Amino acid sequence: MSEKEDLEETDRFPDGTIKLRNPHIAEMDQDILYHLALGSGSHDLVEMFSDVRYVCMGGTPKRMEGFANFIMDEIGYKLPTGTTLLDISYLSYRYSMYKVGPVLCFSHGMGIPSVGILLHEVIKLMYHAKCKNPIFFRLGTCGGIGIEGGNLVISESAVDGLMHPYLELPVLGKMQRRPAILDKQLAHELKDLRFESDPFSVTVGKTMCTYDFYEGQGRLDGAFCDYSEEDKLDFLHKIHQDNIVNMEMESLCFAALCHHAGIRCAVICVTLLNRLTGDQVSTSKEVLGKWQEYPQMLVSRYIKQQMGLPISRPQRTHPQAMKNKCVVTRDECSHQPRMMEGLERQHLCTVRIP
Amino acid sequence: MSEKEDLEETDRFPDGTIKLRNPHIAEMDQDILYHLALGSGSHDLVEMFSDVRYVCMGGTPKRMEGFANFIMDEIGYKLPTGTTLLDISYLSYRYSMYKVGPVLCFSHGMGIPSVGILLHEVIKLMYHAKCKNPIFFRLGTCGGIGIEGGNLVISESAVDGLMHPYLELPVLGKMQRRPAILDKQLAHELKDLRFESDPFSVTVGKTMCTYDFYEGQGRLDGAFCDYSEEDKLDFLHKIHQDNIVNMEMESLCFAALCHHAGIRCAVICVTLLNRLTGDQVSTSKEVLGKWQEYPQMLVSRYIKQQMGLPISRPQRTHPQAMKNKCVVTRDECSHQPRMMEGLERQHLCTVRIP
Repeated sequence: MSEKEDLEETDRFPDGTIKLRNPHIAEMDQDILYHLALGSGSHDLVEMFSDVRYVCMGGTPKRMEGFANFIMDEIGYKLPTGTTLLDISYLSYRYSMYKVGPVLCFSHGMGIPSVGILLHEVIKLMYHAKCKNPIFFRLGTCGGIGIEGGNLVISESAVDGLMHPYLELPVLGKMQRRPAILDKQLAHELKDLRFESDPFSVTVGKTMCTYDFYEGQGRLDGAFCDYSEEDKLDFLHKIHQDNIVNMEMESLCFAALCHHAGIRCAVICVTLLNRLTGDQVSTSKEVLGKWQEYPQMLVSRYIKQQMGLPISRPQRTHPQAMKNKCVVTRDECSHQPRMMEGLERQHLCTVRIP
Repeated sequence: MSEKEDLEETDRFPDGTIKLRNPHIAEMDQDILYHLALGSGSHDLVEMFSDVRYVCMGGTPKRMEGFANFIMDEIGYKLPTGTTLLDISYLSYRYSMYKVGPVLCFSHGMGIPSVGILLHEVIKLMYHAKCKNPIFFRLGTCGGIGIEGGNLVISESAVDGLMHPYLELPVLGKMQRRPAILDKQLAHELKDLRFESDPFSVTVGKTMCTYDFYEGQGRLDGAFCDYSEEDKLDFLHKIHQDNIVNMEMESLCFAALCHHAGIRCAVICVTLLNRLTGDQVSTSKEVLGKWQEYPQMLVSRYIKQQMGLPISRPQRTHPQAMKNKCVVTRDECSHQPRMMEGLERQHLCTVRIP
């Protein structure tokens, strides 16, 4: 029996819906998903979310709003005339949340505790909504180890700053450990969706997940630093020899909680710099913005493939219901520029013919 | 020699500016504060920030924008006609940042890694800007242990989920420990600023800081739960006997990093519920919004006291430069309601006489 079948048998019902590893939830009158500003008593979660198949998370609200608009064109999802996307969790002021048909997009903030709270509530949301076989993606940014900025890393496994392949968490005064296991098949399926013409490379490798961006990742440029540049480079070269190809701050928890819930998941990050040659993120905002779209391109192709759509082109290359697209350059256009302007296609304005 | 004098001698210059415990920063051409969207090369940080004396942090951008507007009236800070507050870090999409004269307000997101990145960059900002003797406050929310919702806890010390009074972080492959020490004198000075008429109690006590909101705080309502209600209550009663009065997710890092930098700091949290009687945050948004203003009231009084202003009343009870205040109720007023509407004072609209 494969790992996947084993997971499905223990963690899901035969129809693909999630078995929750918490007997208390079924006994509760209602379940308030506090940080999402949703609840099983106050909202019809089946009505709202049962069609969700893909859950996509990334750090910032801005990036995930951009992804929601991007995936809408990619899969050709149509909004009723006179409507626009709404941040479903705007009342929580914690995370942002957009739904585009079968795709649910979240911002998860920075670090393990922030992504952990979100995962608890999203896994419960999948359960309450009876979503079938959902797949979770983290679309993030990272520091490359031996990989230059602007390239993709798909994590095949995650370790903490001491090279432990599990998430540690004190629970009721005792240390709990959960293995941080990612779906290797999914990682390679995603890698295979790179086109020859893409401006980025794709590496499948091991990720170090840390609790801090400065000292925790061996940077010299934090408020504190007790070590030398030589100490730092010794450490980075050592972990590179142990096959670590990037560092970020969420994968360990993402892998551990999804695996424990029996949910297939992948972590796709774009490198912002090569840590073997520096610490500071000094690339321009424009270039960084463009790079952050690379993980979205790969995940979009995967979702289109799963939906039986052509993966090499979007379903819609101009705003929904628009007959003539705006063919001027961005600087000439008087309309609001689209959020995904950095993508390698013609500038398109957002004006919609009523 | 007192602890405070000792700190000042080792961590500050005689004029009160911060000595950075990182020899590398002084050698750098410029320092990019990436998550604040500021830099020592791109911005005149002394010109912008040298007058800052009070740094106030809380979880959400919304709450801290509200605090910035609140403290503006409390200290009578005047904006030039035709200007409004700007989120200084809006280009980072990570944290929000507002400046009101000597008060700098930040949102820190959720959890130790998120507040840790912010602290590294704000401590460096204090150094670059040559701020003198800054005091840091965290204004947060928490679960009370034996304290009902809607009351204040000021942390006199912080421990992790295993009752360790230090922050642990892997650095270059080895576990680093930093004591999580808070300023007890400041905690009691803040407590003494409670008025008899305040609708909340103030407790000075020990805080447990966790890496998770659900299992990490012994909740029964996460996506996973391997323990019984009895196990949970045994744990909560045990830590209550060990003088833990509340649980939250940032104090350990806040205390450890501020102490290491020689910065006086305090953590003031409002309880959202009493964890001895429940897990879910089921209080209405309106009441929760009102409660979240209580830490702001206490910190505002402290800042006014330090500035030599009367602490019992705001410097301005109507919008800046307005001659006649709006005396209708909120429901009757056609103007945009003020963000701090929950505070115990008359409804005031934001319209300003030009």
